[in-house]
Amino acid sequence: MKIVLDAMGGDIAPKNPIGGLKLALETLKDVEKFYITGPKDALEAELDAQRVGQRERIEIVPANQVVDMHDSGLDAVRKKKNSSITVAVDLVKQGQAQAVVSAGHTGASVTAGTLMLGRLEGVDFPGIASPMPNEHGVCYILDAGANPDATARHLVQYAIMGSTYAQYVHGRSSPVVGLMNVGEEDSKGNLLVKEAFGLLKKAPVNFKGNVEGHDIFETELDVIVCDGFTGNVVLKSCEATAKAMFTWLKREIESSFVRKMGALMAQEAFRAVRKRGSYESYGGSPLLGVKGVVIIGHGSSSPVAIMNALRVGMEAVTHEVNPHIQTAITSHVFAHV
Amino acid sequence: MKIVLDAMGGDIAPKNPIGGLKLALETLKDVEKFYITGPKDALEAELDAQRVGQRERIEIVPANQVVDMHDSGLDAVRKKKNSSITVAVDLVKQGQAQAVVSAGHTGASVTAGTLMLGRLEGVDFPGIASPMPNEHGVCYILDAGANPDATARHLVQYAIMGSTYAQYVHGRSSPVVGLMNVGEEDSKGNLLVKEAFGLLKKAPVNFKGNVEGHDIFETELDVIVCDGFTGNVVLKSCEATAKAMFTWLKREIESSFVRKMGALMAQEAFRAVRKRGSYESYGGSPLLGVKGVVIIGHGSSSPVAIMNALRVGMEAVTHEVNPHIQTAITSHVFAHV
Repeated sequence: MKIVLDAMGGDIAPKNPIGGLKLALETLKDVEKFYITGPKDALEAELDAQRVGQRERIEIVPANQVVDMHDSGLDAVRKKKNSSITVAVDLVKQGQAQAVVSAGHTGASVTAGTLMLGRLEGVDFPGIASPMPNEHGVCYILDAGANPDATARHLVQYAIMGSTYAQYVHGRSSPVVGLMNVGEEDSKGNLLVKEAFGLLKKAPVNFKGNVEGHDIFETELDVIVCDGFTGNVVLKSCEATAKAMFTWLKREIESSFVRKMGALMAQEAFRAVRKRGSYESYGGSPLLGVKGVVIIGHGSSSPVAIMNALRVGMEAVTHEVNPHIQTAITSHVFAHV
Repeated sequence: MKIVLDAMGGDIAPKNPIGGLKLALETLKDVEKFYITGPKDALEAELDAQRVGQRERIEIVPANQVVDMHDSGLDAVRKKKNSSITVAVDLVKQGQAQAVVSAGHTGASVTAGTLMLGRLEGVDFPGIASPMPNEHGVCYILDAGANPDATARHLVQYAIMGSTYAQYVHGRSSPVVGLMNVGEEDSKGNLLVKEAFGLLKKAPVNFKGNVEGHDIFETELDVIVCDGFTGNVVLKSCEATAKAMFTWLKREIESSFVRKMGALMAQEAFRAVRKRGSYESYGGSPLLGVKGVVIIGHGSSSPVAIMNALRVGMEAVTHEVNPHIQTAITSHVFAHV
């Protein structure tokens, strides 16, 4: 298997992508070659600086443009055909690599994945499946931001794609799907989710019904479907709450010597919770619905996060997620012709 | 001033509302009379059980129906004309009380407030302003769930109403308003927020632009406007995240004796953060845009939360929030005729 990594994607690039690559060379033995895209000289210098070995498993594919946060996703793909993300996605399109990982501009990754690779047949709009830690394992918020103006039909496709992903990658026999809403009662919600509720009841998924914030963490759910605006805002709000809690706790603890000593004794507990809530262990969010494996990493991805994003990409290829999604979507579409 | 409390509203009623009333009798000296609505015998028994004094400041107004969580807001108001919430709102409508507080069914409070009291002139749809703890004070999420299918025009009205509330109740000279979005760049968002962004730039408020999850806690903001679906989901997600973090921390701490000892030494820090993040200190969320003061409490309101909700009601009356909102909305409407 060959995977391509956008070495210029993320807030600390190429340092963290190359650091993640170095870890992946040790842990992901099934990947025979890693392509990395970006300016050749800079990447070679970074590989040397971090003393990355196994160079025979690495190939630099030059890309000299950089997508910045002010480019729109469309501009990034149309006007910067030689950027690290477009060159990376093109390697998947050409069949040279089976998966692409980028922690760069999310809109650019979504647009490049959608326009350059194309959508799976029957998929109207790809969606980002973003993992959240849950009492029972992991729950995917889908869509986490690819499609801010989703229709009810899109939400049904997200349910099918997310369910298929959970089934084949996580080995869940009958993945549980919830619909993000403002209450549990069937009649709740805005026009979009009311329509989606009716469609999901008839869809070929194990639909549990409406769910709320607390269900993200407490309920045995594999997928929570929502429009990309809601999903993105929810994810960022959860992340922000966790950060605010830790900041306030830290400040309170530092206000007294006894508290500081106490916190020192309990520090492993804090570390464990931080780790559990951290994006790092999950690594990346698959963009489901495109003809190829595209994994989107957090902008602030650490080397460990990048390594895990590469692992997520590898797993999607190994478990043949896309052929399975294509089958599930096709049967659903034919059943409803 | 006279305030009416829905004594049957909330998960633990009438116990917690009566407990809150008992506290309010001590702390809210400007309130000459508290009306409480609910079944007469049950309320008298609860007043006796909790040994509530100053009975001359309390008047029970009988209401024998109870709104349950499966009633729709509209049914609750239309079909249960003798419920504790409709009787309570009616006292405001009749001019006997200046504010009403309920920790019961939110949809019923919104519907009763909107249909029975009517909207302020120029207000298309009332919105719930829900307080969130912020590094710089408090930030209101508006709308937090009254109106799940808001239009851009509604969001502008929320901005004006929230801004007026922050100005008169919190003494903020130029309240800062943000628009909840998926990114900070002007071009981000779904169709609704893109349209609202343009209107907010021209509205008579101190509009800061798009904001994201972390801004809720970190940025000096008085109001974050959003549609009621997004606002409700964000609030519940933040609450759920905080709860999950505490649950996980507790579990990690209890797994070792040393950690437990440490946490005991640092326990005041945990308490301070819990208190800061707790809804209890804020008490209630004003329903802005109706002809009367309606304060919506959390279903799980404790006696302290109820007392604070009564305080929020009192403050809205004292600071003449509604006349000020009416002036602000009217000037805006006339300026755009």
